[in-house]
Amino acid sequence: MLKEELLQDALHYGKAFVHMGQTAQYIPELKNVSKYYLGICTIDMDGNVLEAGDTNIPFTIQSISKLVSLILAIRDCGADHLFHDKVGVEPTGDPFNSIVKLETKTRPFNPFINAGAITVASCISGKDSDEKFGRFLDFIRKLCRNEEISLNTAVYESEKQTGDRNRALAYYLKASGILEGDVEECLDFYFKMCSVNVTAHDIAHMSLVLANHGVDPASGEILIEAKSAKAIRALMLTCGMYDGSGEFAMSVGFPAKSGVGGGIAVPLVNHMGIGVFGPALDSKGNSLGGIKMLEYISKRLDYSLF
Amino acid sequence: MLKEELLQDALHYGKAFVHMGQTAQYIPELKNVSKYYLGICTIDMDGNVLEAGDTNIPFTIQSISKLVSLILAIRDCGADHLFHDKVGVEPTGDPFNSIVKLETKTRPFNPFINAGAITVASCISGKDSDEKFGRFLDFIRKLCRNEEISLNTAVYESEKQTGDRNRALAYYLKASGILEGDVEECLDFYFKMCSVNVTAHDIAHMSLVLANHGVDPASGEILIEAKSAKAIRALMLTCGMYDGSGEFAMSVGFPAKSGVGGGIAVPLVNHMGIGVFGPALDSKGNSLGGIKMLEYISKRLDYSLF
Amino acid sequence: MLKEELLQDALHYGKAFVHMGQTAQYIPELKNVSKYYLGICTIDMDGNVLEAGDTNIPFTIQSISKLVSLILAIRDCGADHLFHDKVGVEPTGDPFNSIVKLETKTRPFNPFINAGAITVASCISGKDSDEKFGRFLDFIRKLCRNEEISLNTAVYESEKQTGDRNRALAYYLKASGILEGDVEECLDFYFKMCSVNVTAHDIAHMSLVLANHGVDPASGEILIEAKSAKAIRALMLTCGMYDGSGEFAMSVGFPAKSGVGGGIAVPLVNHMGIGVFGPALDSKGNSLGGIKMLEYISKRLDYSLF
Amino acid sequence: MLKEELLQDALHYGKAFVHMGQTAQYIPELKNVSKYYLGICTIDMDGNVLEAGDTNIPFTIQSISKLVSLILAIRDCGADHLFHDKVGVEPTGDPFNSIVKLETKTRPFNPFINAGAITVASCISGKDSDEKFGRFLDFIRKLCRNEEISLNTAVYESEKQTGDRNRALAYYLKASGILEGDVEECLDFYFKMCSVNVTAHDIAHMSLVLANHGVDPASGEILIEAKSAKAIRALMLTCGMYDGSGEFAMSVGFPAKSGVGGGIAVPLVNHMGIGVFGPALDSKGNSLGGIKMLEYISKRLDYSLF
Repeated sequence: MLKEELLQDALHYGKAFVHMGQTAQYIPELKNVSKYYLGICTIDMDGNVLEAGDTNIPFTIQSISKLVSLILAIRDCGADHLFHDKVGVEPTGDPFNSIVKLETKTRPFNPFINAGAITVASCISGKDSDEKFGRFLDFIRKLCRNEEISLNTAVYESEKQTGDRNRALAYYLKASGILEGDVEECLDFYFKMCSVNVTAHDIAHMSLVLANHGVDPASGEILIEAKSAKAIRALMLTCGMYDGSGEFAMSVGFPAKSGVGGGIAVPLVNHMGIGVFGPALDSKGNSLGGIKMLEYISKRLDYSLF
Repeated sequence: MLKEELLQDALHYGKAFVHMGQTAQYIPELKNVSKYYLGICTIDMDGNVLEAGDTNIPFTIQSISKLVSLILAIRDCGADHLFHDKVGVEPTGDPFNSIVKLETKTRPFNPFINAGAITVASCISGKDSDEKFGRFLDFIRKLCRNEEISLNTAVYESEKQTGDRNRALAYYLKASGILEGDVEECLDFYFKMCSVNVTAHDIAHMSLVLANHGVDPASGEILIEAKSAKAIRALMLTCGMYDGSGEFAMSVGFPAKSGVGGGIAVPLVNHMGIGVFGPALDSKGNSLGGIKMLEYISKRLDYSLF
Repeated sequence: MLKEELLQDALHYGKAFVHMGQTAQYIPELKNVSKYYLGICTIDMDGNVLEAGDTNIPFTIQSISKLVSLILAIRDCGADHLFHDKVGVEPTGDPFNSIVKLETKTRPFNPFINAGAITVASCISGKDSDEKFGRFLDFIRKLCRNEEISLNTAVYESEKQTGDRNRALAYYLKASGILEGDVEECLDFYFKMCSVNVTAHDIAHMSLVLANHGVDPASGEILIEAKSAKAIRALMLTCGMYDGSGEFAMSVGFPAKSGVGGGIAVPLVNHMGIGVFGPALDSKGNSLGGIKMLEYISKRLDYSLF
Repeated sequence: MLKEELLQDALHYGKAFVHMGQTAQYIPELKNVSKYYLGICTIDMDGNVLEAGDTNIPFTIQSISKLVSLILAIRDCGADHLFHDKVGVEPTGDPFNSIVKLETKTRPFNPFINAGAITVASCISGKDSDEKFGRFLDFIRKLCRNEEISLNTAVYESEKQTGDRNRALAYYLKASGILEGDVEECLDFYFKMCSVNVTAHDIAHMSLVLANHGVDPASGEILIEAKSAKAIRALMLTCGMYDGSGEFAMSVGFPAKSGVGGGIAVPLVNHMGIGVFGPALDSKGNSLGGIKMLEYISKRLDYSLF
C-alpha cells in the first residue's frame, strides 16, 4: 500500500535525474522557473491526501488542460460527434505540433496533439473566447475542487505572442472544414486554457475524478460519464505523453497526461489520482523527474496496468 | 466470472458483424477462406479451457508471429540492445507496411509494424533461414504447448511470391545499417514465420504464457522474463492492432496482437490467455468478429484495463 | 515569323480544348466567369502588338502577381538576400499550397509556391499593407504600361475570406522565423496583390519587359536588372506552371507563369512578350486553352527553348 | 564564338573551386579517385573538337546513363507509353534516392531520380540483364561514337554490393505494379549501366547527338527521333541536376545531366555537345568544378537558354 514514506523515496529517486532535464525554453515564464522543483501528491477514494516535495507551487497546466477541455467538449457536444467527425483516437508517431499528417488525413489523429486539442477547443460551447474560458474555469475548479484556480496572465500573454505554430494549425484546420467558428476566438481560448495556474494537489484531484469513473468522491457529483472517463483513461495511455507514450506505457504503465509546465496527471482507476510537478523536461517534453517518480511507484507497488 | 455460456453469447454477438468484413485479399490462400468462421478460446491460470465456435480450425498466424519472434529476439540478444539500437517502442499513425518514416527516422517505430518486425526477425540467432525457422518452430510449439504446429507451405510460397513491399522495407533497412546479415535469408525466415498454422486454442495458450509473466503454468518453465512479458503486454496495448490500436484500447482495453489470418492474441495478466479466430477483417486488417467478441467480454465482465 | 493569322489559328486550336477545363471553383467571382473566354496578345521589341480573341477582358492576375512581387522584392532587398535567406529556387513536386515540406526544410522551395510567394511578399518595403500595395500598384502599372490597373475589390474580399490555407502557411513561416513583420498585414497585401485586374494585353507587356532584359522598350526605363530578369525567366521555366511545369517545358518549352484567374505570362527573350487569358483550367490549375495556344505557336514557329 | 582558349580559361576558373568538393564516398572506387581531375570537351556540328584538361581519363558514367537508357526505352516502347504509364516528367524537390513520394503517387516523378531510372531500365527490351546490357552497350557506343566503351567491373561489383537502397526502390515499384519483369535482372542491368567507363570526349559526343536533334552528324544516323531529343533536353533542364536543377538553370541555363562519377552531359541545340569530367562533387552530388566551368562559358558567351 502507498504510504507517505514511499512518496518520499520516490521523490528522492526522481531528484537524482532532474539535473539532466531542462525547463521549456520557448517563453521566459517557463524558461525561468527553477528546474529543481519536484513534487507529488496522491488522493485516494476516501479523500486521503499524501504529499512529498513541491506540491503547492503553482505552475501552468499547459497540455494537461487538453484533458479538461476534452471532458468539457464531450459534455457539450457528445463523444460520438466529437470522435466521429472531429478528431481521431489513434496515437501518431509525429511530434505534438506536427502539421504534416493534416495534408493527407483531414481529421487530427487524437485530441492530445495540438491540432486535435485546438479542434476540441473549438467544440466547447461559448459565444466567444471569454465565455468559453469562463466555462472552462468553472469546470476545472470543480474537477480540482479548488475555487482559487485562475489564469496566469503573463504566461497567457507570452503564449499568445509566440503561438504562431498553433495559429498555423488552426487556420489549416479551418481551411479543411474541421474547425468551425472564429479561429482567433478559438485560439485565444486555447492560449488561455493552457495558461491556467494549478498545483500538483489540483492535478491529483482532477485525476482522482477520472479514477473514480467521473464522479467527485467528496461531493458525489458526476462530472463526466463513467464511459467517457474510461475512454479518456485509455486515450491517456496511448497518447498522453506525446511521442514518448509507448516508452512510458512500458516503463510505468499508467494512463497519464503531461504538460510542458512540468505537470503530469495520473488516474489509477478505483485507487487514486496522482498529481506531479517537475518542470525539468526530457527531450519529448515530459517531466523527467515526474516520470522517474512514477516509475518508482509503479515498480515498488506493482501498480502498472500491464 | 467467465463461463462458457458467456463465450457463447460473445460468439453470437460477434457473428452479427462478420458479414461486414472480408478476408485478406492479397493471396488466394487467405482470400478463399470462409469469412464466416469465428471462434474464441480462453485458458486460465489453472489450465481450464473454455471454447466457443471454430477454435480448432487451423489458420496462418501472420502478424501474431511478430509476438513470438519478438520474444525470441529478446532472448537471443537482450531487450536493451533490441529496443535501444534496433527498433523503437512508439505507436505510429501510419499503416503497417508504410516506408515513409524510415526516410527521416532510421529505426522502425515499433516491432509490430512490418519494418520493425523484419528488423526483429534479423536479430534472431541462426546461420540461415532454415536454422532461424527451426528455432522459431521449437519455440512457438513450447509457447502454444503444441508439438504439431508447422508451416503452411502454400501460404509461405504465396507470401514469398507477393512479398515485394516487405522486400523493399528490408533492403531499405539494410541500406540504413539497421538490418544486419543476409536480407534474403531474413526475408525467407520472415515469410515462413508468418505462414505457420495455428488454432485459436494455440493462440490462447501463447497468450496465457504472457499473462502468466512469461511462465508456462503447466510446466513451470520460464519462456520469457517477467519484465519482458510486461513490456510486451504494454507494446501490444499501444501498437498491437495496427493503426486501430487507439480505438481498440478505448472500446475493449486489452493488450492484443492481431494478424490478417484472422487471429488475435490477448493476454489478461494473472487471469487468462485468450485466442480468437475470425478471418473477416475490418478496414485496418483486424478480425472484425474477433474485436466484437472481445468488446462483449470486456464490457460484460468489466475486464478492460481502463 | 509571327503574324496575326497564326494567332488566330492558335486561338482556333485552343478553343477546341476549352470545354474540358473548368474555372477556379473556390470563390464565386472566379467560378462564375464564362469558361469560354480565350485570348492571346503578343508585343514585340518594336512595340508591335498582335492580338486574337478576348485580350481586353479584365481578369484577376492571381499567381502571376508572384512575378511582380518577386521583382519588387529583389529591388527592395536584393536577390542575394532573398534567394539565400528567404526562399529557394528549386522546383517541388508538391501542390502549390502544400505545407508538408516546411516541417523539414525551413525555407520554402521557390517563390512561386504559395509559401514562397507569401515570404517574398513579406520582403517588400512598406510600413503596412496599404503602403506595400500602393508600391505594388505603382510598379505593376509601369510593368504593364497601364495606369488604369486597379484592385478588384470583390475578388479581394473573397480571397481574404477564404484564405485560411494561406494564413496557415504564413503563420507557419512566422513560427519558423522565415516571415518577418506582421503576418496579417503581409497576408492582406498578398490577397490584394492577387486580386488586381489585368488583361492579356497587360500581361503581354509585363512579359515583354522580362523578355527585354528588364527594360521597358518604349521608355527605356530599367525596371529590373538584366541579371535578375534572366534568373526569373529560368525560375519560370522550372517552377512557373505549378506541378505541371515539367510537362509544359516538354510540350511548349517557354518560360511562363500562370494564375488561376486564367492568365499566363510568357517572356520570349529578345523576341516578345506574350499574354494569355483563358479561365478554363486543367487539373493543375493552369489555363487549358492557354497552354494549347502556346503549344501551337511553339510548334509552328519552332520557338521552344529546347 | 567558342575557342580553345576560352575552354582553358573556364578550366582555370573551375579549378579554383575543386578543393571545396569531394568525390562520392559510398564505394571505394569512386572515393579513391583524385578529386583534382578536371576536363571539358566540346564537339560542334561540323565535328570540331575542342578540349581542355582531363578529357581522356575514364570515369564511370553513373547517372548520365539514365539519359542513354531513357533514349533506349523510348525506342523500345514508345515515349507515349513510357511517360503516360510508367514515369512522370515533373521535377521533385526530394533527393535522388528518396522513396517517400512513391507511397502516395504510384509513378516515380521523373526518369532521372533513381526510382524513375530503375523503372525506365525495366522497360528496355532484353530477356535478362545480359541481353539488356548488351543492347545498352551497343547503343552507347553509337551515341558516343566509341567502340571501346565497356564495363568497369570493379565499380559494378561495388555498386551491386552497396545497392540496397536501389533494391528497396525496385521492390517497392514492383509491389506497386509499376516495375514489370524480374527485379533482380532489372537491378543487375541498372548497376551495370551505371558502371560503364566513359571520358569527357564520349560524353561530349553523346550530348552532340541530342543537340543535333537525335542525329549523329558524322554518320547521319538517326539515333533518336527529333521530338524525343527535344523532350529529353527539356527534362534535363528541369530535372537533370538532381535537386540542384533550379539553381543550375538560373546560374548556367543549360540542359544538363550529371553523374556522381563527376561527369556532366550538356547538349546545346544546333550548337554543340559538351562533356565535362570533375569528380569533386558539391553537396547535391554534381561536379563542382564542372558546374563552374559551364557557368563561366555560359556567361562569357551568353549561351544560357534564358
